[in-house]
Amino acid sequence: MKEGHAVNEAAIAEAASAAMWAEDRASRALGMTLVASAPGSATLTMPVTEAMTNGHGMCHGGYIFTLADSAFAFACNSHNTRTVAHHCAVTFVASGKLGDVLTATAREISRTGRSGICDVTVTDQAGSVVAVFRGHSRTLGGAITPDHPAL
Amino acid sequence: MKEGHAVNEAAIAEAASAAMWAEDRASRALGMTLVASAPGSATLTMPVTEAMTNGHGMCHGGYIFTLADSAFAFACNSHNTRTVAHHCAVTFVASGKLGDVLTATAREISRTGRSGICDVTVTDQAGSVVAVFRGHSRTLGGAITPDHPAL
Amino acid sequence: MKEGHAVNEAAIAEAASAAMWAEDRASRALGMTLVASAPGSATLTMPVTEAMTNGHGMCHGGYIFTLADSAFAFACNSHNTRTVAHHCAVTFVASGKLGDVLTATAREISRTGRSGICDVTVTDQAGSVVAVFRGHSRTLGGAITPDHPAL
Amino acid sequence: MKEGHAVNEAAIAEAASAAMWAEDRASRALGMTLVASAPGSATLTMPVTEAMTNGHGMCHGGYIFTLADSAFAFACNSHNTRTVAHHCAVTFVASGKLGDVLTATAREISRTGRSGICDVTVTDQAGSVVAVFRGHSRTLGGAITPDHPAL
Repeated sequence: MKEGHAVNEAAIAEAASAAMWAEDRASRALGMTLVASAPGSATLTMPVTEAMTNGHGMCHGGYIFTLADSAFAFACNSHNTRTVAHHCAVTFVASGKLGDVLTATAREISRTGRSGICDVTVTDQAGSVVAVFRGHSRTLGGAITPDHPAL
Repeated sequence: MKEGHAVNEAAIAEAASAAMWAEDRASRALGMTLVASAPGSATLTMPVTEAMTNGHGMCHGGYIFTLADSAFAFACNSHNTRTVAHHCAVTFVASGKLGDVLTATAREISRTGRSGICDVTVTDQAGSVVAVFRGHSRTLGGAITPDHPAL
Repeated sequence: MKEGHAVNEAAIAEAASAAMWAEDRASRALGMTLVASAPGSATLTMPVTEAMTNGHGMCHGGYIFTLADSAFAFACNSHNTRTVAHHCAVTFVASGKLGDVLTATAREISRTGRSGICDVTVTDQAGSVVAVFRGHSRTLGGAITPDHPAL
Repeated sequence: MKEGHAVNEAAIAEAASAAMWAEDRASRALGMTLVASAPGSATLTMPVTEAMTNGHGMCHGGYIFTLADSAFAFACNSHNTRTVAHHCAVTFVASGKLGDVLTATAREISRTGRSGICDVTVTDQAGSVVAVFRGHSRTLGGAITPDHPAL
């Protein structure tokens, strides 16, 4: 049954994301929120705090990358097969500023063999694009949450 | 006098780096140390702390990127002309681990018009490569420290 | 009138593409066909010939890149403002083979100031993805076809 | 004996390059010359011909990429283990022009497990940089020339 299969994948994505989130001290410590996760996609938000900025209130690009990289990780691990970032490219389109709440939306665009590609867009609270990111992943194998099958 | 010119460039790089460091709350908050700066190059270190890791003691790739990105910023601003990161690509070669002290070494490989390219290598305390990074910069213009000429 | 404006942009894209095609000896010499062009997008096809392959009938990645790069050029010049490729990244997902007819579909995903980003997907005649490409452009200014305004 | 080992690696690189060159109809058809090959490095040249240019005598970026990609392939296959390009990024620093003879110099900067990174610089006959390229490879396994061991 096709629909039942889709429901199952969604449940697996939820379970894998929950297990990753429990492990991911770094993303939590940065104030990120896991807003949504589904098979092949994820959305996270992060407020830009003073510690993330330079003296002029501009966010260090590293934190924008980190948010995008976390969204990438949740999206490419949503099939419950342990997968890591191998290569990532980011383009900074506009500055993130103190007080902004940034949203990273990740979606897989390719998955062949052990290699995947995931596109992430980072926007601010007005919906303006701050950065675009493309992540290349490698599947290591093994389930993230052993209660579910690795797809 | 050629030698005097080189000495001058080195002094400008030192002054620009010091001015940037004073502004760069984000890099300081991460425990980075500016080890060396010279015209077109920079070296920074950062210890991998618990807040940077997941539950297994592996450093979030975002922090490795952030260290490399800071080294890139110091290298491409060393001519005392305000320059920003436009596009960056990072490849993760090995994991950073809790307790590691990472070193990012940046050097410009190209500068034409307002565009520059800077290569950064991130190594651990044993000298093993953790990541390679290539940053593409854009010069905005204007001196970082107005006490010196922008080159 | 909004609709009239859209019609106008489409006409400008057509005119700019026609002018570029007339200049672009290299794309024509490779047997490419300009299938479609619109504001911010373009589609080109190219047959994989013997000269493009190694002894095993696999297409040299350079020709796959070249097709994608041409589609990128048509998309980012569709506003009739002279624009050049600055940085391009390609991921090879599957092999192109002798006799394949490859299609490159390009669409702009970002345009801010003089900088643009364009995503291109290269597929074979079965619709399978052969490569994904992301191009970063710079606007030089000046119209491609002076009979129309540069947008 | 360390020196004997180095000599052996050089001989293997030469043999692997010769075997690849015999297969590589595409590079030969473009007028490329394999100038040098050694373990982890390769140098190729290519003249910019009329068929590679647009109506203004500028070389299509795809041909510059193709030259760099060929140099990358020779460098990463120099250990006689079949290796393919997975992801490549190129930055165009200056134009290639009709009549130029371009040189691509490739050298491996990282090799871990089945993944490698290779940097290529493309220069013109005056030694000016035309493009910088970074290639990411995957080792498939199997010798290129079975007369020698795959390293």
